[in-house]
Amino acid sequence: LLLGSDEERLALGCSQVQLSFRYESRDQRFTVYVMQLSNCNALCLPADQKMHVRVAVLPCTEATRCLFRTRGSLPQDSLEVKEVFGMQISQSALRQKTLRVDVCNTSKSGHEDCVAGAQISLADVSFSEERCTKWYNLLSHVYMPEIDKDKE
Amino acid sequence: LLLGSDEERLALGCSQVQLSFRYESRDQRFTVYVMQLSNCNALCLPADQKMHVRVAVLPCTEATRCLFRTRGSLPQDSLEVKEVFGMQISQSALRQKTLRVDVCNTSKSGHEDCVAGAQISLADVSFSEERCTKWYNLLSHVYMPEIDKDKE
Repeated sequence: LLLGSDEERLALGCSQVQLSFRYESRDQRFTVYVMQLSNCNALCLPADQKMHVRVAVLPCTEATRCLFRTRGSLPQDSLEVKEVFGMQISQSALRQKTLRVDVCNTSKSGHEDCVAGAQISLADVSFSEERCTKWYNLLSHVYMPEIDKDKE
Repeated sequence: LLLGSDEERLALGCSQVQLSFRYESRDQRFTVYVMQLSNCNALCLPADQKMHVRVAVLPCTEATRCLFRTRGSLPQDSLEVKEVFGMQISQSALRQKTLRVDVCNTSKSGHEDCVAGAQISLADVSFSEERCTKWYNLLSHVYMPEIDKDKE
């Protein structure tokens, strides 16, 4: 399950994203705060390409906006993001959703390449009005095809 | 972000997996209990192929066993699994890991096809000896390439 350069990545420790959520019952509004990233060097992002965070609330119907992107910035080991995304959704619908948060970079040709992400089940999201803030480990996408390769 | 047949999948609600974790500090042992699956009909699994749950603790070095599979069984809407997997790992290493739990089926040729999964950051895993049990939404893998397609 481990390629050569992954040894280095493991030694660097894992990258993390700090997120907050809040659900306002009165307005049926779900808000995601992308606070900051840490240990991004472990993602081995190309130094000359801008990186951003992509947030998706899935599954998603065409009628709703469920995909958001932060503004791009050149890679740094720690990055303050502090961007907020909101959507209107009922409590029962939200509990069926999963939040995908990916760190991506954009090549000069405009191609988006997502390198690592966190996935958060919203089955037990809290409906108190308080903001819940946590750090989540980012799993490199290289592990997804690898565990699939393992089967053959 | 939505294909024709996904409309149906959304209407069926989401599938869930119930998991428990425990970390025993004395033995440095992390245990994952795959308890049960619910609403599997929403996964639209082929009725004549066995399904199983694949559990991976990632990233993973070659020296450690980090990939486990439950026994296979024919698809049912609700499935009691009750299987336990354990690994030896330090607290600091575990906090850098992410748990991937996928529902897969195996074709007659032995090919493993994983259709949906949950991903759980272990950054804030509890080191009390108590078992923590939760239901997690399973996100269909069809959404992963779709949000990637969206970029072009």
